Formats: sequence, C-alpha cells, structure tokens
Amino acid sequence: MSLSFEVLAGDGAARRGRLNTAHGTVETPTFMPVGTAGTVKAMMPQSVAETGAQIVLGNTYHLMLRPGAERVAALGGLHRFMNWPGPILTDSGGFQVMSLKDLRKLDDDGVTFRSPIDGARHRLTPERSIEIQELLDADITMSFDECTSFPATEDEAAFSMRLSMKWAARGRKAFTERPGYGLFGIVQGSTFLDLRAESVKALVDIGFDGYAVGGLAVGEGQAEMFRVLEGTVPLLPRDRPRYLMGVGRPSDIVGAVKRGIDMFDCVMPTRAGRTAQAFTRRGELNLRNARHRDDHRPIDERCGCPACRHHSRAYLHHLIRAEEILAAMLLTWHNLHYYQDIMRGLRDAIEAGSLDAWIAGFEDEQARGDIPPL
Amino acid sequence: MSLSFEVLAGDGAARRGRLNTAHGTVETPTFMPVGTAGTVKAMMPQSVAETGAQIVLGNTYHLMLRPGAERVAALGGLHRFMNWPGPILTDSGGFQVMSLKDLRKLDDDGVTFRSPIDGARHRLTPERSIEIQELLDADITMSFDECTSFPATEDEAAFSMRLSMKWAARGRKAFTERPGYGLFGIVQGSTFLDLRAESVKALVDIGFDGYAVGGLAVGEGQAEMFRVLEGTVPLLPRDRPRYLMGVGRPSDIVGAVKRGIDMFDCVMPTRAGRTAQAFTRRGELNLRNARHRDDHRPIDERCGCPACRHHSRAYLHHLIRAEEILAAMLLTWHNLHYYQDIMRGLRDAIEAGSLDAWIAGFEDEQARGDIPPL
Repeated sequence: MSLSFEVLAGDGAARRGRLNTAHGTVETPTFMPVGTAGTVKAMMPQSVAETGAQIVLGNTYHLMLRPGAERVAALGGLHRFMNWPGPILTDSGGFQVMSLKDLRKLDDDGVTFRSPIDGARHRLTPERSIEIQELLDADITMSFDECTSFPATEDEAAFSMRLSMKWAARGRKAFTERPGYGLFGIVQGSTFLDLRAESVKALVDIGFDGYAVGGLAVGEGQAEMFRVLEGTVPLLPRDRPRYLMGVGRPSDIVGAVKRGIDMFDCVMPTRAGRTAQAFTRRGELNLRNARHRDDHRPIDERCGCPACRHHSRAYLHHLIRAEEILAAMLLTWHNLHYYQDIMRGLRDAIEAGSLDAWIAGFEDEQARGDIPPL
Repeated sequence: MSLSFEVLAGDGAARRGRLNTAHGTVETPTFMPVGTAGTVKAMMPQSVAETGAQIVLGNTYHLMLRPGAERVAALGGLHRFMNWPGPILTDSGGFQVMSLKDLRKLDDDGVTFRSPIDGARHRLTPERSIEIQELLDADITMSFDECTSFPATEDEAAFSMRLSMKWAARGRKAFTERPGYGLFGIVQGSTFLDLRAESVKALVDIGFDGYAVGGLAVGEGQAEMFRVLEGTVPLLPRDRPRYLMGVGRPSDIVGAVKRGIDMFDCVMPTRAGRTAQAFTRRGELNLRNARHRDDHRPIDERCGCPACRHHSRAYLHHLIRAEEILAAMLLTWHNLHYYQDIMRGLRDAIEAGSLDAWIAGFEDEQARGDIPPL
C-alpha cells in the first residue's frame, strides 16, 4: 500500500490512528488547515506548524490557474514553493469547478471552464486532475468528482454519483503509485443512504488508499449530516483513513470523530479569523462587538496561542476596527490553535477510552457561552 | 537628566551611542519602525524585535482618535496594549493634524480638528499632546509643533518656526520628569539655515533630553536635506541624541548618520512591504513584476530574514498577484530586517572607524542594481 495507516486505538466508532506519508506522519483524528493558493491565509508556515497542524490542504483549482501546476513543479513542488515540508493533501478541483455554474461546461469526459482571473479556457478531466496533483507533489491526491449539489432528487444524486464513480476508476488508473503517496476516493450520493452504499461499494471495488465522504456540509444541517455518516462510515474499510471533506464547526468535527471520521479540512477557522470571529471553548465570539472595547481579558485564558498569551480582547477589537492586518494574523492563529486543541483533546480521549466524557465536557462548555467580564 | 545617553565612539561627524530608557536600551544609530495605530503593520511584535529593532514609534494622532489615549492608559499603557515591552517614542500629532488642511483650524494656542473616523471634534494643544503621550506611557515624548509646509517663504518659515518654539516651551513645562522618560524638542526652519540656527538656540535655551530635526524629507530632495543637516546638526548639543524625523530611504539614512544623526523613523519599509516593494543591498525591487515569476532565488541571498531564508521570488510574486496577506507579512519583515542590517552595519563601521569605506561599499552595491537570474 502506498500510504501506511494504523489504527492505534478505538473508542466506540471513533479511532485514534497514524498516517505515514512521504513528507511525515499525521496523528489522527486530524484537522488540515486550508492553504488554498499556496498559503494558509495570514499565517507564516512555521506558525501553522506551531499550532500543532501536521498536514495542510492545497487547492488544485486555484493553483492550476495561478501560478500554474507546471510552474509549481519547476519550482520544486508545492512543499518547497510554500515552505511546508510536512504532508500535503490536495483536493481535485472538482468542488470549485462545479461552483462556477454558468462559467463551466460539464461533459461525460470532464469539465471545461474559464478562469475568473484572466478568462483563459481550462479543462479538467479525471486524468488531468491527477496529473496536476502529482505536479504539485501532493502526498494525498483526491479523485476528481462531480460534487452533487444540494438539495438533489434521488435521480440527480444517482446520476451524479455514478459519473463520479466512473471518474474515480479513471483517476485510479492515471495515478502513479509511489511509496508514501496515496489516492483517496470520494463517496457521493447526497443524503440517500442506498446511493452512499452503492458509492462505497464502487470505490472499494476499485481500491483506494483512503476514503473521503463528499457532498456534506452543503446545507443539509448537522443532524442530517450525522445520519448520513452513521449510514456510510460503517461500510468503509476499517484499515484505511476516512476523511470528511469541508467540515466544519467544532461540534461538527467532534460529532464526526465520534462516528468514525479521521480527517477534516475547513476554511472556517481561517476565514473567521479574517472577519473578527473567534472560536473558543465557550462558543463563538465576534471581537468587532463594542462590548470587547475595554476588556483586559484574552479571548480564552486557557488558550496557549500568541493572541491569548499576549493580547487583550480590547487590543484585538482595536485592530479589527482599525482594519489592521495583525487582527487577521492573531485571530487566524487563535482559531487554528483552538481547532488543534480540539483534535489533541479528541486523540487523547480516544486513547484513554473516555471519549463520551470528553464530548460531554466539550458540549457543556460550548453551551455555557462566554464568561462575562468582571 | 531623565534619559541617559552616551556617545561611545565617533567617526567624523557620525556617532555610535547608547540611549537608556525606562523600557530598555537603544543602540544608536537606530531605526524605529512605525507602529502607527498600536501595531507595526503586518508584523507580530515579537517579529519586529527579531529584525533587531529596539524601539518603535507610536502615533499620538491615530491613537487619540482610536482607541483613545485614556483607554490605552486604562489598559496599562501602549507597551502593554501592543505587547511591545521595549522603548517607544511617540510623535506629537502635529504632523498629521497639519496635514488635515481643510479639516483643521489653527490658532495661537493649538489646533482644532474633526476626526476623519467619526467626525467628532478634537483639540490638540502643546499641553494636551504631552498629556496624551504620558497617557500612552511613551519613553520619548515629542514636542507639539506646527510642521512647516514645503515650500515656504522665509517669512512663512520664520512665523511657523517661532510658533513651534513657543509651543515647545509650553510643552516642556507640561512634561512630567520621570527617570528613563524624556522630551525631545523639534528644530524647524525649513531650508533656511539662519532660521534653523535660531530654532536650535531657542530649543537649547529651553533644554530638552534630545533634539529632532523636523520639516525635512517633505519634497526638498536629498542634496538639500543634507545641506540643511550640515548647517544644523553641528549646532546641536553633542551629549544629546539627535533624531531626523520621517527619514527615509536607505541612502538618506546612511548620509544622515554620516552627518551626525542618531535616530530615524519612516513608514517606507513597512508601506513598501504592503505594495510589493523590497529594499535590498542591490537597490529596490518590485516583486509584482513578471520577471520574478519563475525565479528560484530569494530576494537577497545574504539576508537572514524569513522571506529570504525560506521563500523564492517566484513565491513572493505569486502571493502578491493572489493578494495574499502573507505577501505583506514577508515583504514587511524583509524590509525591516534590511533596514536593521543597515543600522548594524553603520554602528559597527563607526565603532571600527571605517565609516567612509562602509559607505563606499554600500553605495557601490546599491548602484550595481539587482543580480540578473542565471
């Protein structure tokens, strides 16, 4: 197998694992910060590592348009380009291309679209998506799929999922096996459990190094997402990593780990960091709010990030009001650090066999809300 | 004397000194990064210190409008507010208020103006400016002056300078003497050497902890600026630090150190860092230029900053084109690091008595321009 993965411990459906890639080891469950255009926005790569992140995500779609996959390859690959020596997972570009709506044309072979940057015509097929991800030197390559829109009828979801399964088989053939590198298949089927089961079977028949659950966190709501996970995750091979794409809020991640997911990515902590939002043990805070104006306290007394160790809410509020870049830098760092704290907590709890108690504590604190100022 | 200052060595008119403030020691000649609104833009305060900066500048005008000087004081002062435990110099607000033109009204007692943020009416007088700087807890407070516009007739320059001298005397009376804290007077007089001499005499008669040269780098050109310095600096007390306000490009700083200046501040390295400009040993680079698109090399092979140690010009170019915050972070860090490299070079050369040779090498490298790619 190209990527080695061990399940070290389990607690209910949850797993504590270790993934070994060409560029290093990832302890799971893991959260992957999103480095869309070759940078985790507003963070130095060393700072991303300091939060505890072990793997980041790169975007095929953004990088193929600018600076171009061949250019990144000529510059030594994405690890060197962005100075992230650790593991990188790249998405396939499918999700972003499908979002272009009027600017793209889908056929049975792939998708043609125009670059929103310069209007140039581009084409993505299952083979080209794999080729780009190999040019980027991704440790984990994702299958190119047609991400089903939501809501979809059962017929639409079935048609879309079956096209993705054909594309998954083509991608698997196009993928170059190398030690420490792997290809993940993506389960589709919207909220229809029979389609999800059909998709899992198709992917397992092809055989992948890992399995992603796609097409969720697209508006179906947390309860429905958990229902789909409960109907899908148990069908996945136990010895391979499982990745829930584009998820999510802290409570989404905690609930998905409990249901057997090992890997996550989401723009939420980074995007929120650029819009004055902080995720905390006691829920979400909007630091732009005037109530923080004179508040000496850090965002979270128990957080070890630089924003919480060195700065008051009053200062962060000031930076936000003054539209200072440092606001985005400090809040992004905080949010990524808190997400990694959650992952550390989940890993430790699974090892200790105390996941339910950990989750009860997490939910209790989240529900209590922010500590009022003295 | 409230601030202690020693001249450790000299080379021609240039001095190698040490300034001791309530919040630490500053080796001179020194460059002070500008932290306008309580942050050196796009830099963590720890990173500012890593460049070698020992003192930063804060802006009375910006901080009085937002978040307010009394608020900063209630939050523990500017050092704590912005997490810069080292020395801070604050300007007086005069320069910014004078720039408001139609939005301000000057009288003999001070200036009334409206906040561009919320339209609120504010008033700055020599006494209020000193009070604000004390609320901010500045180690070095600047006199409130009427910064003469350029060009000015001799009559205009004389009127403006004499008003500033009256205000300087009022500020001196308002200033609270405390160990490690000091007040600087500002020499005005535009490009008229007799007015500069009159201004120096007026300030020395009042007596200040340091002397700044104001009203330069406002369009008069480098040769004229150097001529004014040559006619002014020799008149200043030898045992007190000398600060050239708002200067400048690397060659301005080098020439001013040669003429006996000890302290500098300028937005140029930070502002340039947010607009794709890099200052280097071999001149200025615009990293937005397409010629950097495939360039594996760092900005400067000999630079020790994170941008140069870890990233290619191609990557920086990509970040700029993609409008990524990391572009501003890395280029600002580089520019501040290079400015501090210049100051380190100047200090070492003065100590070694080899300043002229150092300057010849500096000018020769600057003139040669960028090394072409292989």
